[in-house]
Amino acid sequence: MPGDSMDKPNIVTCTAPVNIAVIKYWGKRNEELILPINSSLSVTLHQDQLKTTTTVATSRSFQEDRIWLNGKEEDITHPRLQSCLREIRRLTRKRRNDGVPCLDLSCLSHKVRICSVNNFPTAAGLASSAAGFACLVYTLAQVFGVEGELSGIARQGSGSACRSMYGGFVQWIMGNQDDGKDSLAQQVEPETHWPELRVLVLVASAERKPVGSTSGMQTSVETSCLLKHRAESVVPGRMAEMIEAVQKKDFPTFAELTMKDSNQFHATCLDTYPPIFYLNSVSHQIISLVHRYNGHYRDTRVAYTFDAGPNAVIFTLQQHVPEFVQVLKHFFPPETKREQFIKGLPVNHAALSEELKQTIGLEPMPKGIRYIISTKAGPGPCVVEDPTQHLLGSDGLPKKSM
Amino acid sequence: MPGDSMDKPNIVTCTAPVNIAVIKYWGKRNEELILPINSSLSVTLHQDQLKTTTTVATSRSFQEDRIWLNGKEEDITHPRLQSCLREIRRLTRKRRNDGVPCLDLSCLSHKVRICSVNNFPTAAGLASSAAGFACLVYTLAQVFGVEGELSGIARQGSGSACRSMYGGFVQWIMGNQDDGKDSLAQQVEPETHWPELRVLVLVASAERKPVGSTSGMQTSVETSCLLKHRAESVVPGRMAEMIEAVQKKDFPTFAELTMKDSNQFHATCLDTYPPIFYLNSVSHQIISLVHRYNGHYRDTRVAYTFDAGPNAVIFTLQQHVPEFVQVLKHFFPPETKREQFIKGLPVNHAALSEELKQTIGLEPMPKGIRYIISTKAGPGPCVVEDPTQHLLGSDGLPKKSM
Repeated sequence: MPGDSMDKPNIVTCTAPVNIAVIKYWGKRNEELILPINSSLSVTLHQDQLKTTTTVATSRSFQEDRIWLNGKEEDITHPRLQSCLREIRRLTRKRRNDGVPCLDLSCLSHKVRICSVNNFPTAAGLASSAAGFACLVYTLAQVFGVEGELSGIARQGSGSACRSMYGGFVQWIMGNQDDGKDSLAQQVEPETHWPELRVLVLVASAERKPVGSTSGMQTSVETSCLLKHRAESVVPGRMAEMIEAVQKKDFPTFAELTMKDSNQFHATCLDTYPPIFYLNSVSHQIISLVHRYNGHYRDTRVAYTFDAGPNAVIFTLQQHVPEFVQVLKHFFPPETKREQFIKGLPVNHAALSEELKQTIGLEPMPKGIRYIISTKAGPGPCVVEDPTQHLLGSDGLPKKSM
Repeated sequence: MPGDSMDKPNIVTCTAPVNIAVIKYWGKRNEELILPINSSLSVTLHQDQLKTTTTVATSRSFQEDRIWLNGKEEDITHPRLQSCLREIRRLTRKRRNDGVPCLDLSCLSHKVRICSVNNFPTAAGLASSAAGFACLVYTLAQVFGVEGELSGIARQGSGSACRSMYGGFVQWIMGNQDDGKDSLAQQVEPETHWPELRVLVLVASAERKPVGSTSGMQTSVETSCLLKHRAESVVPGRMAEMIEAVQKKDFPTFAELTMKDSNQFHATCLDTYPPIFYLNSVSHQIISLVHRYNGHYRDTRVAYTFDAGPNAVIFTLQQHVPEFVQVLKHFFPPETKREQFIKGLPVNHAALSEELKQTIGLEPMPKGIRYIISTKAGPGPCVVEDPTQHLLGSDGLPKKSM
């Protein structure tokens, strides 16, 4: 009904970032509330390179809730999606009852339309659920006019999504309440704190899909005695050391803890029964390469970390990026005719000494790395003010241009 | 001097077996005495397939100690070799002082000649030091006429050598004395106890030499927090369970513990800093294959275990050998023109159902396995009575036929 302002949908679009854990989250103590067995810490990556964009529209004229992810309609009844919708509505009601003015109370009874896209290919194998749920919760909160602590709701969509609710360096404090109210993310330092820190995402050639993280961590909790020990006795100390390393911008300590924690996470996967392997021969080669590179300089200049998939994420300081990228190019000769090898932040050319190549002394693995995304730490979720950027039209359907 | 019986050398030849740990030894609490941080348990393999043969000769006419290993003269001053020689001589003296009659006291002042060969190629990547030191110590004891407990001496040559001093199922009790006197091997059950048990050694295609176990375990002890937890809190319970499983001939429990313990050992290698990788893509494929095979039958019929190298050792029961070998041949198609694929105990042909192949559903890896040694549990060291089998002539030099 054109002209009827009551039927004009309320539309908001936001973006949210991907985050990479340097102290890993693996294992839940409560599957439904998504409460972890240990705290974790991550670096939020810059949205210029990696982000999710989500538009939420509500209108009393919508007959049903619907969702589109990366151009494809998906099942809105997905339990974790429903958890987030329910929790945001509950929070809105609570705020109103507490006397906090909310923008649009009528929304609460309206149906929602959700449309979300990533600016990176799913094939990149980056855990997009963290950015996706963070973006959804942040956008819903805007629509319903709710402000404040939202990481506890994002956590109920996907555990690590809570860390994508903040920029920079973020810890997810495991909490100890049964209701999970104290299991929240907190910013340790903003993205401006350590401008020299650089991130390279090494996108591995797509292979068969590994064991999913939800079922993987469940099996680990049930079968790995090393995981229990890690969660209870190793991680608490590492969290404290990592926070201190971040605050002091102590790269060698940050790097060493990052590598050790990645290795320990994969060790607990191997201690799972049946064992889970996320590292393959390319990962092994990247790990060897980093240790030999650091060994050459007798200095921890580069760190690797691997999540539940074959991609590597490299941390280094700005000044070492050009040479290290050359090293990667040398030992993982890219496919020439295809897409560009370095995406994202530009990387200057650097020479590679024969001596360095010889110290590393690995057999080059052609096409082991498909491409590299060069990025850095970045901010948390943002509202997109430009209405032309909405992914949904006023009819609550994805715009044709998608 | 022909005819002078005093100059006739005292020559003894013995054989000793290889053993495969099912509860792994990884990490020493005392490097010099070779005292482990946890107890371990192994199966002694049959010498018909895998053995070391050692001849020791002593004569007052020999001017110097010498040693030949697999046809090549080696350095007799090797500290662990010297430890074994010193300890055997010390034991001989002690026995004499205790009033135990010894065969030949004059030997104690004579120089020794040692010659040792394996009946399997070093390229097979089987830890030959266990069989080698067990055989050396056993043969020296025969020469010096010493009987009784010798595993504490073999242990000082190579930790796992103490377990090769007995046949069948053998535990190495870690002990707790500082002098290591109580860190000894003990037979749990003889080789005749479980005649249906079969062993397949899957010899991987030779790759670059991995990190040696001595330096590897040292780094693990220094850097892995999971290893300490494993040694103190996991292994004691597993040892008890494993001994019970062996005594009851409970294959599913034996198999599951074997796989879990192999995986946990490799997990601690990954938790080592820098991490150590002994498992490669072929190992990963073998692990997946075993779990899928067992899954197909909803029964634990086959177990894998991996030491500090790429070879897999498979345990199964006699009745499952033919089919499982067919499965291996299907998913690791052998190189046709080369050596025979199955060595050792004969394996009957079996049919392979399409259904089984489909359940396993892995991409075949041509040449992933070079060959298979089919064997079973076997006896401990033995004396070779036939003097024509001596590896050394009466001149104390290797016989030409070698």
